[in-house]
Amino acid sequence: MAVYTEVGDEELEKFVAAYDLGQVVACKGIAEGVENSNYLLQTDHSTYILTLYEKRVAKADLPFFLGLMEHLARHGIACPTPIKGRDGKALRDLAGRPAAIISFLQGMWPRRALPHHCREVGIALARMHLAGESFELKRANALSVAGWRTLFDGCRARADEVRKGLGDEIAKELEIIAAHWPKELPAGVIHADLFPDNVFFLGDRLSGMIDFYFACNDFLAYDLAVCLNAWCFEPDNAFNATKARALLRGYNEGRKVLAEEMAALPLLARGSALRFLLTRLYDWLNHPPGAFVKPKDPMEYLKKLRFHRSVKGAGAYGL
Amino acid sequence: MAVYTEVGDEELEKFVAAYDLGQVVACKGIAEGVENSNYLLQTDHSTYILTLYEKRVAKADLPFFLGLMEHLARHGIACPTPIKGRDGKALRDLAGRPAAIISFLQGMWPRRALPHHCREVGIALARMHLAGESFELKRANALSVAGWRTLFDGCRARADEVRKGLGDEIAKELEIIAAHWPKELPAGVIHADLFPDNVFFLGDRLSGMIDFYFACNDFLAYDLAVCLNAWCFEPDNAFNATKARALLRGYNEGRKVLAEEMAALPLLARGSALRFLLTRLYDWLNHPPGAFVKPKDPMEYLKKLRFHRSVKGAGAYGL
Repeated sequence: MAVYTEVGDEELEKFVAAYDLGQVVACKGIAEGVENSNYLLQTDHSTYILTLYEKRVAKADLPFFLGLMEHLARHGIACPTPIKGRDGKALRDLAGRPAAIISFLQGMWPRRALPHHCREVGIALARMHLAGESFELKRANALSVAGWRTLFDGCRARADEVRKGLGDEIAKELEIIAAHWPKELPAGVIHADLFPDNVFFLGDRLSGMIDFYFACNDFLAYDLAVCLNAWCFEPDNAFNATKARALLRGYNEGRKVLAEEMAALPLLARGSALRFLLTRLYDWLNHPPGAFVKPKDPMEYLKKLRFHRSVKGAGAYGL
Repeated sequence: MAVYTEVGDEELEKFVAAYDLGQVVACKGIAEGVENSNYLLQTDHSTYILTLYEKRVAKADLPFFLGLMEHLARHGIACPTPIKGRDGKALRDLAGRPAAIISFLQGMWPRRALPHHCREVGIALARMHLAGESFELKRANALSVAGWRTLFDGCRARADEVRKGLGDEIAKELEIIAAHWPKELPAGVIHADLFPDNVFFLGDRLSGMIDFYFACNDFLAYDLAVCLNAWCFEPDNAFNATKARALLRGYNEGRKVLAEEMAALPLLARGSALRFLLTRLYDWLNHPPGAFVKPKDPMEYLKKLRFHRSVKGAGAYGL
C-alpha cells in the first residue's frame, strides 16, 4: 500500500489550479503501486491519478517515463497519459516531490490469470513494442546483468539467512547467465514489469497497461520472459504451458517472434527470474520494520529460476 | 491506511451483480478509515465506497450504523448512505466479511482546521443531533466510563512504559471523572468520533460527515466535547479559544446549548480526552509490529486532559 507522502487540501488546490481540470471534488490515497504515492483525484471534469514520485524513482528518469506514456497513448496503446498544465508541462512539484497528474484508466487487474488473459497480454505487449519503435528517448535497463551483480553484492553476505545455500546458488547462476547472455537480439522499449497488477481488464478484454516506471531499452524478448514468469505459473509455482502458449501466440499475432528470440527465451526467462529473486531478496533483507509495504517472498522466484534452468528448449513454453 | 482484506475482481463482480449499479469499471483500495477495509468503487453509473467490516466492528452493531446513516441522509444530513441491493438489503458478505456499498461523498477533509471550519462543524453536529432524535435503534456508548475502566485494566500494568507516572495519573483521573460524570443531560444519537478526517469540505463549505462507526446514544454535549478536543487545539497542543468559540456558536445556531450542558462541558471534555488517551495508549502498547496502521501518540491527549482539568469553567471555551 503506497501513500508515503500526505498531500494537504490547500496545497492540492494550488497544484491543481495550474491545470484546466476544474475544481477538485475529492482526492483519496490509493493502495496501489509500491514505488510512489498515488491518489485518485476527482475534479468536476473527470477522474485522474495523482502520482508523487518518491525517492526510489530517479528524477532524471521521469521525462523518459512520462514521455513514453504520452508517446504510447498517442500511438493507440491503452495506457495512462500525463496531463499537461496550462504551461505545457506535465511534471511539477507537490509536497516537496516531483508530481504529475495522469489520466485514469478503467478496469481491474485479474487476481486469477487465465489463458485468455495471457493471450491479451501477449497481443498488448507486442503492440507496445511496435509503438515504442518511434520513441526517441533512451533509458538503459538498470536491472539487467550488471545491475544484478550490484544487487547481489549488497545482499550476498546475508542471502543464507533466507535459505541455506542460496548465496552460492545465486552466485553460480549469475556467472552462467552473464556468460551466455545474448548480445544481439531485436531491442527497443520494454515495460519490464508487466505483472498482473499492471494490466487492467474490463470483462474479458484488456483495457490498459499501467506503471511504466521500470520501462527501458532492452531486448524485446526479455519483456516476454518477464511475462512468462509473471503470468504463467500457478500459485503452487507449477508452470502452466497452456498459459505460456496463449501468451506467446498472442504476442506472435502482434509481432512475429524470431527463431533466435525463441531460442534465447529459456535463458532470458532464467535471467528475468534471477532479477526478481534478487530485488525481492534485497527488499526482504532490507525492509524497515513497520514499513507499510509487505515484502514479497523471494523463494517464489528461485523456484521459477530452477524451472527455466531445467527446460530443454523453448518448446517447453508451449509454442 | 486501511485495506486489510483484498477483494478479487471475480468475487467483486458477483457481489455488485446483486445491485442495480451497472458494470464495475474500477475498484481501488483507499487509504482511509482505520477500522475497516475501504475501496473506491466505480461503475458505469457512479462512484461508491465499498466497505468490508473487519473484526474491530461488531457485526451486531452494523444495522445500527447503516440504519443511522440512512436515517440521517433521509433527514437532510450530508452523510454517506448505504445502497440497497435488488433484495432490499444493504448488508451482505464479501471475501468472508460483512460488506456494504455506501454512497460517495465529495469533498476533502481540512488538514489545517480554521475557525470557519469549526463553525461549520458545530452547525452540522447540531443538525445531526436533531435529525437523530427520530432514529429508533439504540446503541450504548461502549467507550464511556465503564468502557474506559476496562480499557485501563488492559494497559495499566504497562502504562508507565510510555511515560513515568502515567498509570497513577490515569487512575486518579478515572476516579474523579467517574465520580462527577453527569447523570442527567439531554441525550441522543452522537457521532462520537467527529475528527477533521471525518468531515469533508468543498471550498469553505462543509460537504458532509463520514465514519459513523462509533456512533451511539449518549449525552449530546459529549459530542461537543469530543469536537473541542479534535478541532480546537493547535499542533503544539495549545488550546485555541477562537476555534472553540466558533464551534460552540455554530452548534448553538442549530441547537440551543442548555446552561447545564455548558456547565458540564469541562468535565465532559476531560472525559473525552481520557477516552482518546486510553484507546491510543491501548493501541500503542498492543499494535502488532509491522502493522499497516501507525499508532497515534497517546501523550497528545494527556496534554488536552490536563488543559481541561485546569480550566475554571466553561467560559474558558470562549462562549
